[in-house]
Amino acid sequence: MSKTTPASGRSAGMPSAAIKYQPYHKIDLPDRTWPSRTIDKAPIWCSVDLRDGNQSLVDPMGHDRKARMFQLLLDMGFKEIEIGFPSASQTDFDFARWCIEEGNVADDVSLQVLVQCRPELITRTFEALEAAHKPIVHFYNSTSELQRRVVFAKDVQGIKQIATDAAKMITDMAAKAGGGYRFQYSPESFTGTELEVALEICNAVAEIVKPTPDNKLIINLPSTVEMATPNIYADQIEWMCRNLDNRENLIISLHPHNDRGTGIAATELGLMAGADRVEGTLFGNGERTGNVDVVTLALNMFTQGVDPMLDCSDIERIKQVYEYSNQMVIPERHPYVGELVYTAFSGSHQDAINKGMKAIKVANKPLWEVPYLPIDPQDVGRSYEAIIRINSQSGKGGIAYVLQADYGLNLPRSLQVEFSQDIQQITDSEGKEVSPKRIHERFLERYVDQPGARIKFVDHQTFPDTEVKGRRVVEATILDNGKEIVIKGTGNGPIDGFVDALSRHIGIDLSVLDYSEHSIQRGSNASAICYMEVEHPAGRLFGAGINTNIVAASLEAVVSAANRIVSR
Amino acid sequence: MSKTTPASGRSAGMPSAAIKYQPYHKIDLPDRTWPSRTIDKAPIWCSVDLRDGNQSLVDPMGHDRKARMFQLLLDMGFKEIEIGFPSASQTDFDFARWCIEEGNVADDVSLQVLVQCRPELITRTFEALEAAHKPIVHFYNSTSELQRRVVFAKDVQGIKQIATDAAKMITDMAAKAGGGYRFQYSPESFTGTELEVALEICNAVAEIVKPTPDNKLIINLPSTVEMATPNIYADQIEWMCRNLDNRENLIISLHPHNDRGTGIAATELGLMAGADRVEGTLFGNGERTGNVDVVTLALNMFTQGVDPMLDCSDIERIKQVYEYSNQMVIPERHPYVGELVYTAFSGSHQDAINKGMKAIKVANKPLWEVPYLPIDPQDVGRSYEAIIRINSQSGKGGIAYVLQADYGLNLPRSLQVEFSQDIQQITDSEGKEVSPKRIHERFLERYVDQPGARIKFVDHQTFPDTEVKGRRVVEATILDNGKEIVIKGTGNGPIDGFVDALSRHIGIDLSVLDYSEHSIQRGSNASAICYMEVEHPAGRLFGAGINTNIVAASLEAVVSAANRIVSR
Repeated sequence: MSKTTPASGRSAGMPSAAIKYQPYHKIDLPDRTWPSRTIDKAPIWCSVDLRDGNQSLVDPMGHDRKARMFQLLLDMGFKEIEIGFPSASQTDFDFARWCIEEGNVADDVSLQVLVQCRPELITRTFEALEAAHKPIVHFYNSTSELQRRVVFAKDVQGIKQIATDAAKMITDMAAKAGGGYRFQYSPESFTGTELEVALEICNAVAEIVKPTPDNKLIINLPSTVEMATPNIYADQIEWMCRNLDNRENLIISLHPHNDRGTGIAATELGLMAGADRVEGTLFGNGERTGNVDVVTLALNMFTQGVDPMLDCSDIERIKQVYEYSNQMVIPERHPYVGELVYTAFSGSHQDAINKGMKAIKVANKPLWEVPYLPIDPQDVGRSYEAIIRINSQSGKGGIAYVLQADYGLNLPRSLQVEFSQDIQQITDSEGKEVSPKRIHERFLERYVDQPGARIKFVDHQTFPDTEVKGRRVVEATILDNGKEIVIKGTGNGPIDGFVDALSRHIGIDLSVLDYSEHSIQRGSNASAICYMEVEHPAGRLFGAGINTNIVAASLEAVVSAANRIVSR
Repeated sequence: MSKTTPASGRSAGMPSAAIKYQPYHKIDLPDRTWPSRTIDKAPIWCSVDLRDGNQSLVDPMGHDRKARMFQLLLDMGFKEIEIGFPSASQTDFDFARWCIEEGNVADDVSLQVLVQCRPELITRTFEALEAAHKPIVHFYNSTSELQRRVVFAKDVQGIKQIATDAAKMITDMAAKAGGGYRFQYSPESFTGTELEVALEICNAVAEIVKPTPDNKLIINLPSTVEMATPNIYADQIEWMCRNLDNRENLIISLHPHNDRGTGIAATELGLMAGADRVEGTLFGNGERTGNVDVVTLALNMFTQGVDPMLDCSDIERIKQVYEYSNQMVIPERHPYVGELVYTAFSGSHQDAINKGMKAIKVANKPLWEVPYLPIDPQDVGRSYEAIIRINSQSGKGGIAYVLQADYGLNLPRSLQVEFSQDIQQITDSEGKEVSPKRIHERFLERYVDQPGARIKFVDHQTFPDTEVKGRRVVEATILDNGKEIVIKGTGNGPIDGFVDALSRHIGIDLSVLDYSEHSIQRGSNASAICYMEVEHPAGRLFGAGINTNIVAASLEAVVSAANRIVSR
């Protein structure tokens, strides 16, 4: 075994970061207020699933997939839905017409369409919107320093002119069409644009659109590419909110992407910084790493006691429509919805969850307080059942939980410890998850059914002891290696008497240490299960019995313990 | 079509958030400094893939899967690796022994193992670590208010006692074993613990461990459950860094989870707040929603010009080992590694990327500046080839890019516009992505091969015009509906003469508007392609020809245009 020295330069395979990449500039806002604020109400939500989301699919949605997504968005309570870029393709144009003519859209919902700042596209856009109720015309142009330089070869004035020309044409056409339109402007690539430039262009657009408090202009500030830590976006939003003219006539909207994996954080900090509205998609579908995930944002608010104003109560349906319409699969660890997010494998986690849930039942208050579960799975239509799985990392808590939750068995604590060692051996040797079904089967095999065991309980009778007053004589029929035998003993009651009889028969001194019995909540009959901890000269262990007769169940539990003792 | 009013209460299917959930408390830290800081160096990285990651797998890793992951972590340059919980299962114990005895671990790497604060587990842990070089014994206990109340039924003093007893036992055993150990303490569920309580317990532990600047104690502050916006975690970290005794003897470590989808942000803000170290996993595997993703963190730093001190240059290998060892699939939109994250579908994005890449080539500087691509895909071993796919949302930029990048064809701008309409019809009618191969085939079919076209070029000769000095006579052989014909014309050169001949033959007046020709960079022979824009009485359009003879290629391009004109 040689101890090698590592190659010098740990990230030696990569180019020098300092030469190839520039750090994002800081925002000069020492008196920022957002870090001391919290989110106490839901923003205006705008879904861009049918636009940003759709445009980034390998196979974009056809009509049926779009219509299914659209219906879900309406059902969830979205009041603003961007339905496409109708001037860019016939597919999007046709879908806009379908939404308006057959989409069954309530009057409090605004359909939104995207358009670039080009006259021929704007004309086509108004054709697509005919007869829509208060639609939002969303126009944009790229304003970033990089795009001005390498894509458009224009200076700031030239780029501003594109935006103001479009604003003029759009407001003129809207007025001619009889009004009733709403407007949104995006300085696209906002995060790549100098703040002063974004401000100048947005103010110039607003000056032409002439918004009022009753008909506000939406100023959408996209993090088209996420370029910095999320606090920087919050600084930028707070700076814009402070410096834009006539803030009271504006709705400040966030449109974050997720290139650095911090889109949700950027949105949350941006809301704290003063934004009013969020554009995003279900579970974060969208170009490259995706748009911000509005379901996670909504449920993050929900778990802080804030009404998210989006109905996520049936997250499985949302997932199904997402997967059908987008033809993409939601990964196992996706917050709130992934297959594994309500699952605890660790033994200590399982134990704590178990105790937390019991404490909630006892407290009988609505407040949700369970370790390791930041949300009640039932609030989004998921169930407790799937919470705990058992593998080699699990302890007694998890095993006890699944037997209780899935099979109605309340194992005494010492039996949990005893039985968990048995399961641990299985998981250690097989290295695999053990299903609740297998755990239950193993429990029955080991404690109740005991295939191949020496003794089987058949029947019993008790009589008063004629010699000692108050004592009982127990006469029981058992099979010993298949041979029917009647055994006899005395005691205070049937269990005591049976233990006496069985001790004599097998020649080992048994006594009952602990006893518990309960009806089994689930299952077709009203059986009872008895757990019996039995002491014998070499130690102690448990037996169990199940029977519709509670006395028979307890005597079977004694036999179960005895079988385990004699087989050692 | 009826316009329905929505049900009152948009999130009506869910319980009242205000009654069921409490908002996380604010941290009183008005003079926080982290929002003005940036990350300018990499933290100490500790991988917990083999512990937190492994414990949360449906099928935990067997030896081979663990060993493969372990080798990858060493190769990437991790200097601290948590290899398991050896006192909790035989599997983890055996793997710890293997790492120490056969893992070929360099002396600058510390193996780390987790243990709860219980005597029998601590004893077993030291057995597992025998002969390891400077291993880290990581002990923890839950300190959160909720767990103290519902899980342990102990007060703060009782919980502190567990931690200090363990600290005493561990330092004693380490001293007996001859020293050379490092120590880490985690107040588990730190984010559920009152800051004053966490501080008191951490200080008490440090008082027993007696760290020095040369042998620091790692104080790991886990966001075991992510419970609030990421700025709160940063506030907590800055508060702890300010208030812990003898900060100079401590390494402050972050261990974030991702329940709210903001684990990466919480880590970044936590580092700005003063933390020194990060525990996380590759691509964020881990309990529930996962641990924080160290690859994304590292590459986020890299794109800001900071050496991440982790080698992510072969992200495909990292992905492969992740998927093999964890038996989990990385989703398409995962930052830096997902299948779709270097793909642009939008036409305007494609156009901008295309121009950005050209500008970089022209500038010939190392600085990476391409719109919509925050990292050069080549820096992580991905390629440009996959960047652009074409669907109904794409424009000419994308089509031009794939023909150029994949097939070496530099279409003139007007031809890009003309041909993109053709592709748009396909994508609109089929609603599917069109592969670069299909785009190329369509281009050849429409402009070059033209199956079923009326005219085919066969051969040509030129002679000096005996009547006009300086003019040339062109005599060309063509097939017209399969019949061989010789046509004749005059002009300044061969193209001009051929256009004259062909115009007479088909009875349509043609003239050349634009002409360009280039050799085809890829392919087995040194063919040239000619693009010819031809004007005719009803408009203008392009033809193209490919031939090893540049004159023949240009005449074929004229024939191509003529065929498209006569077939209208």
